[in-house]
Amino acid sequence: MQNKVYKKIYRHNTIKLINIRQITTVMGKKNSEGKNESIKEIGITVKKTDDFSEWFTQSIIKSELADYSAVSGCIVYRPDSYLVWEKIVRITDAKLKKSGVKNSYFPLFIPERLLMKEATHLEGFSPEVAWVTHAGDTKLDEKLAIRPTSETIMYDSYSRWIRSWRDLPLRLAQWNNVVRWEFKHPVPFLRGREFLWVEGHTVFATKQESVDEGKEIVDIWEDVLKNYLATASFTGMKSKKETFAGAEYTISLESVLPNGKAIQGPDFHHDGQIFSKAYDIKFLNKDGEQEFAYQNTWAISTRNLGIMLGIHGDDKGVIIPPKVAINHVVIVPILFEESMDKVLQKCSEIKDELSKTKYHDERIGVIIDDRDYKPGYKFNHWELKGMPLRIELGPKDLDKDSAVIARRDTGEKITVKISEIPSKVKELLDAVQSNLYENSLKIMNDSIAKTDDLEQFKLFIDEKKIVYSPFCNNPECEENIKTMTGAKTLNAPLDQEKLDENTKCVSCGAPADKWFYFGKSY
Amino acid sequence: MQNKVYKKIYRHNTIKLINIRQITTVMGKKNSEGKNESIKEIGITVKKTDDFSEWFTQSIIKSELADYSAVSGCIVYRPDSYLVWEKIVRITDAKLKKSGVKNSYFPLFIPERLLMKEATHLEGFSPEVAWVTHAGDTKLDEKLAIRPTSETIMYDSYSRWIRSWRDLPLRLAQWNNVVRWEFKHPVPFLRGREFLWVEGHTVFATKQESVDEGKEIVDIWEDVLKNYLATASFTGMKSKKETFAGAEYTISLESVLPNGKAIQGPDFHHDGQIFSKAYDIKFLNKDGEQEFAYQNTWAISTRNLGIMLGIHGDDKGVIIPPKVAINHVVIVPILFEESMDKVLQKCSEIKDELSKTKYHDERIGVIIDDRDYKPGYKFNHWELKGMPLRIELGPKDLDKDSAVIARRDTGEKITVKISEIPSKVKELLDAVQSNLYENSLKIMNDSIAKTDDLEQFKLFIDEKKIVYSPFCNNPECEENIKTMTGAKTLNAPLDQEKLDENTKCVSCGAPADKWFYFGKSY
Repeated sequence: MQNKVYKKIYRHNTIKLINIRQITTVMGKKNSEGKNESIKEIGITVKKTDDFSEWFTQSIIKSELADYSAVSGCIVYRPDSYLVWEKIVRITDAKLKKSGVKNSYFPLFIPERLLMKEATHLEGFSPEVAWVTHAGDTKLDEKLAIRPTSETIMYDSYSRWIRSWRDLPLRLAQWNNVVRWEFKHPVPFLRGREFLWVEGHTVFATKQESVDEGKEIVDIWEDVLKNYLATASFTGMKSKKETFAGAEYTISLESVLPNGKAIQGPDFHHDGQIFSKAYDIKFLNKDGEQEFAYQNTWAISTRNLGIMLGIHGDDKGVIIPPKVAINHVVIVPILFEESMDKVLQKCSEIKDELSKTKYHDERIGVIIDDRDYKPGYKFNHWELKGMPLRIELGPKDLDKDSAVIARRDTGEKITVKISEIPSKVKELLDAVQSNLYENSLKIMNDSIAKTDDLEQFKLFIDEKKIVYSPFCNNPECEENIKTMTGAKTLNAPLDQEKLDENTKCVSCGAPADKWFYFGKSY
Repeated sequence: MQNKVYKKIYRHNTIKLINIRQITTVMGKKNSEGKNESIKEIGITVKKTDDFSEWFTQSIIKSELADYSAVSGCIVYRPDSYLVWEKIVRITDAKLKKSGVKNSYFPLFIPERLLMKEATHLEGFSPEVAWVTHAGDTKLDEKLAIRPTSETIMYDSYSRWIRSWRDLPLRLAQWNNVVRWEFKHPVPFLRGREFLWVEGHTVFATKQESVDEGKEIVDIWEDVLKNYLATASFTGMKSKKETFAGAEYTISLESVLPNGKAIQGPDFHHDGQIFSKAYDIKFLNKDGEQEFAYQNTWAISTRNLGIMLGIHGDDKGVIIPPKVAINHVVIVPILFEESMDKVLQKCSEIKDELSKTKYHDERIGVIIDDRDYKPGYKFNHWELKGMPLRIELGPKDLDKDSAVIARRDTGEKITVKISEIPSKVKELLDAVQSNLYENSLKIMNDSIAKTDDLEQFKLFIDEKKIVYSPFCNNPECEENIKTMTGAKTLNAPLDQEKLDENTKCVSCGAPADKWFYFGKSY
């Protein structure tokens, strides 16, 4: 009866009942459970600190951000995660466009002969390539790779388009899906067989311009990670062993998850003339001579959406940073028969006011949860789903012309005058955003341990630390470290001074090339 | 020398030299030509009325909207066409979101067993399915289809997510790439093996709601085609034979290209309970009974970008309707040594003014073409690429405080006071937009011929008309008409009155079901 009354009055605010249940679904199998679960069953059943992997899976499945699919290793991006991805795309795309990058779309398929042109690249990707061999009942003359990355198909076009220095720079990107048939254990968002990304493939007339683009792109990646996803990362150059297949060098942004595992985020590869020679991308330079072009490749993917969820969430569920959230505030009315109309009316007014308020470049997104459930159920529900702020409003608050705002990140509750809600919400959204980043930075910094001693190195790795040590950058030595400890290099900070001759590699004792971060990683 | 001076002064306005050349590239082969082609070679070498197919290909390749790729049947969407697609996506996506549709992302792959669950659907798509059989060197246990459309993979999830009437409606869409391995002659944008689209797959508790969604979606399609792409179309219900594989009925929007061929654009399929029964999508209704859900499917694709280009272009090149163009105006300065500074300064001021001017929901996009080429070359260049308006400004114009605006669609040149440029440009952009639509409507209406006589029907089809005739809606009769004339049904207008018994099918003479459009089609 309660439900009916306000459904009638506030129909425009009514949100669809969201179906949360204990999900036991695995890879195409059906959930055999009924629909009347108690609140206890809805929540996450492990602590993040006890079992990060299980916590991570439960938190994104139960919050309905993602689900398993009928295809092993591929997930479904449900609307609440896809909306966040759309926002990350919008933010990143605007920054790339501003820097002069243009979007395009190249075929999903790459003929085998094209993929084979650059040997190192082929070697790097061929074990993970999904091959199309048939169309209908017809066997194809040449098998087609599903793009694991698009260098090879794009450079085939570039070799026809580029003739003169006037055609350069050519800076194209594409937002698309790529497939890498990982045989390792898949983890939603973090490691899957299909993911979404933007891949940039740029061509320059000089090495300098090409190298300079690195700074511009890495700045964008750092900006997106720090100021939007609120995730800390360290930028550096990959070791020889970990350099992208076909690149001269690779710059990566690495993050640290709460379980101490490192994970690579966005990257930038300078390919020099390696691909231009393999794919015949030549141009007539200003001196009238034919020259091979200089190239870069760079990308950011849905993996960073996963890193964001993994870093910020807690035992109650995920936390969406305000700057990539679509909805920022849920208003939960505390309803009693006699004061219901007044309370709902005020909630509606607060919503209208808030929706008019600008938060950075857009409006604050507000939902009123006027469903026929107890407030406690709704609190749990929106905490699970990571809504940055919650406003509680009941008859007692109304009498005092105030409301309670609860922060998702700290749980702190703040009583505010109703007229001050818009300015307070803006302030709190910024506070949540920066607190999430500070926490992430703390997780990262706390996990880093510095040593030039091998025994201590091993100890730190056992303690799930990220270890910062001098390293010779010899691939064989890195292989050796991996065998000994399970750790590999992450990257080497870019702004290092040249090491003196006395700095020895932590493992082999040869002169060190640079200080590197090491860790176990995804 | 001239170039140097203003490059220095107006560097921020300098646009990259766009590389136009006689392109003879075919499927992975290189253009053997040099780079110093004359203007004559740049243009399209056939008349649109003489050879539409050749004109179409030349106009989109030479304008650098698209290019062939190394994969037969797949094109490259170069930045100038991808920008238009991005704008179509933005416009359409906003309308769909407003109507309550949410975006999501499901896997590219569909396991064979899922595709096989609905027999008619399988039969419709399996001849065109690209199959992944291997990953790396490993043969997959089950082959995977590249999605030709995503019903089957999405409904597998839906069957797990939907339990109660409270979970409905579920209205999800995804903007993605799909693959249909056509064996017919591919035509860029119009028929290719991979295309981009949005596919909506929605679920309702009642047939009525499901049917009602059709009106909402078809309204959006009509709005996008008419008011943005400026292309005329007729909406109607597909014949039994042409109904989508697995649907109860299909509503389509059909357009007519200048060569008299019809082409299907966006569509809406009501699937009733066909898929819900095949994929076990059941819900507990309000009476506490298990019931199969009602479903729809709908889509709009990059094909409509091609239809738009095919309808509007002329012998000079393509024409981009202002409401889907990113850039609306090119300013071409007429430069002489002594007045160069003043003219360029004024061009820059005009650009600044125009860029501040709103055109519908966004700013007017303006480019100054200050390259070191003759004005005539630039005029041809921007006509080829379809820029809606061109502003010419030389010293004589400046003396009179005026400029010349040329319309791309009519070629008309209008002299305006410089201060009046922003308001005149807005007015002319609307004029171009509506003129393009009017022309498209005329092409369509002129091509339609009505008859209930078979001999006349055949004659009209030979004359490349769209024929409007009464038809029995018997698939065998349609097959027969196809064999006799090469024509098939397009659709039957929705708002027809029930025919009386004396109206006979144009071909077999049996009682007619409805008046249908017929034509040869892509």
